Amino acid sequence: MIIVLKPGITKKEETAVLREIRKLGYTPHVMRGVARTVVGAIGDERTHANLESLSTWAQVESVTPIQKRYKLVSREAHPSDSTVTARKVVIGGKKFQVMAGPCSVESEDQLLRTAVAVREAGATILRGGAFKPRTSPYEFQGLGEKGLKLLAKARKETGLPIVTELLSENHADLVAEYADILQIGTRNAQNFQLLIAAAKTGKPVLLKRGMSMRMEEWLLAGEYILANNNPGLLFCERGVRTFENYTRNLLDLSVIPILKSETHLPVVIDPSQGTGKAALVTAMCKGAVAMGADALIIEVHPNPAEAWSDGAQQVTLDGFKKLMQEIRPFIAAAGRE
Amino acid sequence: MIIVLKPGITKKEETAVLREIRKLGYTPHVMRGVARTVVGAIGDERTHANLESLSTWAQVESVTPIQKRYKLVSREAHPSDSTVTARKVVIGGKKFQVMAGPCSVESEDQLLRTAVAVREAGATILRGGAFKPRTSPYEFQGLGEKGLKLLAKARKETGLPIVTELLSENHADLVAEYADILQIGTRNAQNFQLLIAAAKTGKPVLLKRGMSMRMEEWLLAGEYILANNNPGLLFCERGVRTFENYTRNLLDLSVIPILKSETHLPVVIDPSQGTGKAALVTAMCKGAVAMGADALIIEVHPNPAEAWSDGAQQVTLDGFKKLMQEIRPFIAAAGRE
Amino acid sequence: MIIVLKPGITKKEETAVLREIRKLGYTPHVMRGVARTVVGAIGDERTHANLESLSTWAQVESVTPIQKRYKLVSREAHPSDSTVTARKVVIGGKKFQVMAGPCSVESEDQLLRTAVAVREAGATILRGGAFKPRTSPYEFQGLGEKGLKLLAKARKETGLPIVTELLSENHADLVAEYADILQIGTRNAQNFQLLIAAAKTGKPVLLKRGMSMRMEEWLLAGEYILANNNPGLLFCERGVRTFENYTRNLLDLSVIPILKSETHLPVVIDPSQGTGKAALVTAMCKGAVAMGADALIIEVHPNPAEAWSDGAQQVTLDGFKKLMQEIRPFIAAAGRE
Amino acid sequence: MIIVLKPGITKKEETAVLREIRKLGYTPHVMRGVARTVVGAIGDERTHANLESLSTWAQVESVTPIQKRYKLVSREAHPSDSTVTARKVVIGGKKFQVMAGPCSVESEDQLLRTAVAVREAGATILRGGAFKPRTSPYEFQGLGEKGLKLLAKARKETGLPIVTELLSENHADLVAEYADILQIGTRNAQNFQLLIAAAKTGKPVLLKRGMSMRMEEWLLAGEYILANNNPGLLFCERGVRTFENYTRNLLDLSVIPILKSETHLPVVIDPSQGTGKAALVTAMCKGAVAMGADALIIEVHPNPAEAWSDGAQQVTLDGFKKLMQEIRPFIAAAGRE
Repeated sequence: MIIVLKPGITKKEETAVLREIRKLGYTPHVMRGVARTVVGAIGDERTHANLESLSTWAQVESVTPIQKRYKLVSREAHPSDSTVTARKVVIGGKKFQVMAGPCSVESEDQLLRTAVAVREAGATILRGGAFKPRTSPYEFQGLGEKGLKLLAKARKETGLPIVTELLSENHADLVAEYADILQIGTRNAQNFQLLIAAAKTGKPVLLKRGMSMRMEEWLLAGEYILANNNPGLLFCERGVRTFENYTRNLLDLSVIPILKSETHLPVVIDPSQGTGKAALVTAMCKGAVAMGADALIIEVHPNPAEAWSDGAQQVTLDGFKKLMQEIRPFIAAAGRE
Repeated sequence: MIIVLKPGITKKEETAVLREIRKLGYTPHVMRGVARTVVGAIGDERTHANLESLSTWAQVESVTPIQKRYKLVSREAHPSDSTVTARKVVIGGKKFQVMAGPCSVESEDQLLRTAVAVREAGATILRGGAFKPRTSPYEFQGLGEKGLKLLAKARKETGLPIVTELLSENHADLVAEYADILQIGTRNAQNFQLLIAAAKTGKPVLLKRGMSMRMEEWLLAGEYILANNNPGLLFCERGVRTFENYTRNLLDLSVIPILKSETHLPVVIDPSQGTGKAALVTAMCKGAVAMGADALIIEVHPNPAEAWSDGAQQVTLDGFKKLMQEIRPFIAAAGRE
Repeated sequence: MIIVLKPGITKKEETAVLREIRKLGYTPHVMRGVARTVVGAIGDERTHANLESLSTWAQVESVTPIQKRYKLVSREAHPSDSTVTARKVVIGGKKFQVMAGPCSVESEDQLLRTAVAVREAGATILRGGAFKPRTSPYEFQGLGEKGLKLLAKARKETGLPIVTELLSENHADLVAEYADILQIGTRNAQNFQLLIAAAKTGKPVLLKRGMSMRMEEWLLAGEYILANNNPGLLFCERGVRTFENYTRNLLDLSVIPILKSETHLPVVIDPSQGTGKAALVTAMCKGAVAMGADALIIEVHPNPAEAWSDGAQQVTLDGFKKLMQEIRPFIAAAGRE
Repeated sequence: MIIVLKPGITKKEETAVLREIRKLGYTPHVMRGVARTVVGAIGDERTHANLESLSTWAQVESVTPIQKRYKLVSREAHPSDSTVTARKVVIGGKKFQVMAGPCSVESEDQLLRTAVAVREAGATILRGGAFKPRTSPYEFQGLGEKGLKLLAKARKETGLPIVTELLSENHADLVAEYADILQIGTRNAQNFQLLIAAAKTGKPVLLKRGMSMRMEEWLLAGEYILANNNPGLLFCERGVRTFENYTRNLLDLSVIPILKSETHLPVVIDPSQGTGKAALVTAMCKGAVAMGADALIIEVHPNPAEAWSDGAQQVTLDGFKKLMQEIRPFIAAAGRE
């Protein structure tokens, strides 16, 4: 920690700070600068009491942490890239993966038609929501277990592994019974109890970024998964909330090089939630591929205008086929298959 | 819904839109403007399928909802102010209420000293966290049930009702057994399963605003409480996340007149989380009181520099006493007691 | 500056950093911590080349400045409150001031009716835009010099000093000829050439906060005024841009205690721009007064629905009269007149 | 415009609204819905008084504009792509262009070394700041005219056209005498007087996006250039301000498909300002190229650690050479040269 003292404080006030630093388990190291005195507090910031509270003292101007707060997810802890496997589909390796499917599972016909079509077009994982977090209590909340059963049926017919959202700690076992990857949605990205419950199922976890989550917070949310003995973590960018109202969210593609530098874990991009507009999805996919993402997750629906949720951002079956063709040259240029 | 069609589309493309509007249960109403054709779709937007998906159609420029999506929390549904009562303490009435106490319950001594001091200074409800949501898995996660028991003991000694945070659906019954008001934290403000679990305990719920939550989303999150047959809802502003880095959050006092206009429910302001800096708390309290808030919730600690969580934003026992004296004239000017 | 080195770097890499720190005019001071080595670079950060560029070096993890970058506006430089005077009206003293008037000057009748009414209701300064910055080139751009002449006429009739916006360096002398206070709008808050031109007129400057301006940036923009030998600076909060769409801007009242702590200069609050909704203005005024603002600036129009700009946020003449009555008890409670 | 009336208003209150709509030059069109009455106001929203002020009326719930406010920049006005030419370098055509050079012009040696190196590596336009907008008045403000002369010299030696920033209306003629493209910086993106002055020089204008600018505002700022008879407009994304603090700005690559859909003008991406970190620049360039940008503008410096401004985001000469090699496959995959 770096503690900056206010200018013009007395020797006694300074001594009190140094004493408190020692009391909290750190070794103080004083530097007298031109305008201010700065104290370096040496010690492991992750195990000691947090010195930031010193900022309430009248003689302290600011307190700044130095150490990174995440360990297991960090590239320092694991210098080479790690991969996550779901029923033989390896995410984070040489092969670029595409997850696709409807926002919500609505019916057998809707799901199977979509699953077959996306596999034909080249998708390798099937997505579909059975439990849906909805802003209003009056909106369609998902088919629940019936939806999970339809997903399992679609997997059986197409061979595609399944990624689906986990909404409740109490559903963790149920969802893990059917799903190959558990998705944690943006509204639950700091629902730590749910993260722990998901980790404990042992299934890979796709962790979406929270709506206004800083990188450090996201990495620490991921740390909850690894710290609960589950190495199968995927970070999934889905856009952040800003002042812009043209799009629903701002898809932050800069997370790709940042995550590749800070962590060893695979990076997935969700251009559907990330823009909220089907017309922007293909372009965002091209960017994500070129920048080194490991996978995409794309919402596809046979008839978006009649979708039971988020129709505006789902692409049609034909649209998805075209998208897959258009991103191919960029997958090659990025040195992926 | 208002559907704006793109300029220059064919009659056939327009007809397809009108047919789809009817199919989805609305009556279309065409208005031909100078530059664009606009279609009003008449029907109850809360019960029909959502027309917004029409925006994926090539001939549609935009789709705008007209109706408010919340019902039970709305001022339209309940024109007079409603109140929420916790062990005879009435929030939302003539008397202004102050909730105070430590961020985390740390020990019997810490809690009881604080509880006695804040009651002396005029607080009417005791706050304290037993289950703590922490950004890092390596930080203090709260004393759990032991903390709840200490809170119950402090209530017994001081007579102050208790507000404490609920983190997990699985703790709902446990926390409700001890607490008089259940707090839902900012990171769980759209954890709908937790909202439902909290509502079902029957205890009043203090719903903090999510970190980047729009008013409509917050009102709809509150709607989850009332729609689950629990009328005891308190909206609690605790700051939103912006680009500013001087404060931890930006405490949005404009929510006071907005909530007073849109809803009938009481409004609580949290200046501690809302600024992250103890030095700003008193001024924010004055503003909140003057603007018509019904209650404050303030973090108070006997020794903030050694607090186990969020020390930088907790005021001392003396600081709290002084704060209570300073806000008194504004409570009177606001016509409260 | 505090330079944090990456873990595991070689002695040679560390030496190169120390050499560069010396070359840039600082004295390095090494602290070896548990996980990382930290170097304090001692020297005046405001006069030396900026060390932040060291962050491009492979062996450097981060560089953090320690010193505050502003001098003349800081409370350290001038511990007591300063005041700004416009034609005998003193802002920042015991007397609370209210600036009021239309968004745009539209006609003699509109301006004079408003000026007389706001003076009657207790306003002490007249506001009105003659040059208007408009998002679209097709919107009303203000009456220009004709508007300034009407303002001068209104001042003659009512005795109220005038505050009006300066949009262009080339208008500085012209606007200063008529105005008693020059307003710099939010879109020009970092138009440094305009700030310099305004400062050089010698007239007091009301500097609005930029739409997404951090406190430090705002204080430094104010520093441009004082550094150009003009002590007459007023900071005016007018709301910042966030994700919220219920209001036009989020009026950040926390700037009041922050500015009172960081600077000695008077603080003005603009609840009209700050919310964009006339219905919220009175409540925001109450909060601003209670929190210690020195003045308000409020948009008032005889017939907002027909205003040539920003009608939605202007209050009526009657509304303003009522507002002035409602804030009176809070002015008293705040110890002002 | 769409005017939504509040539920439960009287016939007389409704009639007053309809009368006002007519008075302001629109034809009202009433739709009675299930829960609310909606009035479509038919007329050209760009030429009539703005109906939004009606929202101040007690009986009006909301007012929503329908028409797009921009004309000349819109794709509707000019369906095919337009190009902008600076000394035979065509931006927006088949050939992908790269602008590169130092943040600030510091010396003849620094500029010439950089200019030669970036041309060798494949850059086609030279960038360099002679007038610098600086947050603090105590920071290096640029070499001014001396810097322009050095840029002209570098152009003579390398043949590269020059892009440089215009800060002041009073420098428009001076800067236009030397520059081939005038840059308007983010802090001046809504300094409309400067936009008009830049347009009137007749030189192409590179308009950076404001720090918290919505798409509509940016397009309207561009409209100021075209409406002042200058067709040579380039939109340049440089990142927006968010809550994230890992990067300096969030580079919003979604603007590429949005601008390509809304306007006919070329799109330039600035990954240097857009991230503030040299290590992220190459990845962002790959994304921009893949998504269809027409050009990049990249900060390059022979020794970033000693740069007089923004060293942390400038790449080295070698770094730039490597970057140009790495983006080549993506330029090919995007069908550009």
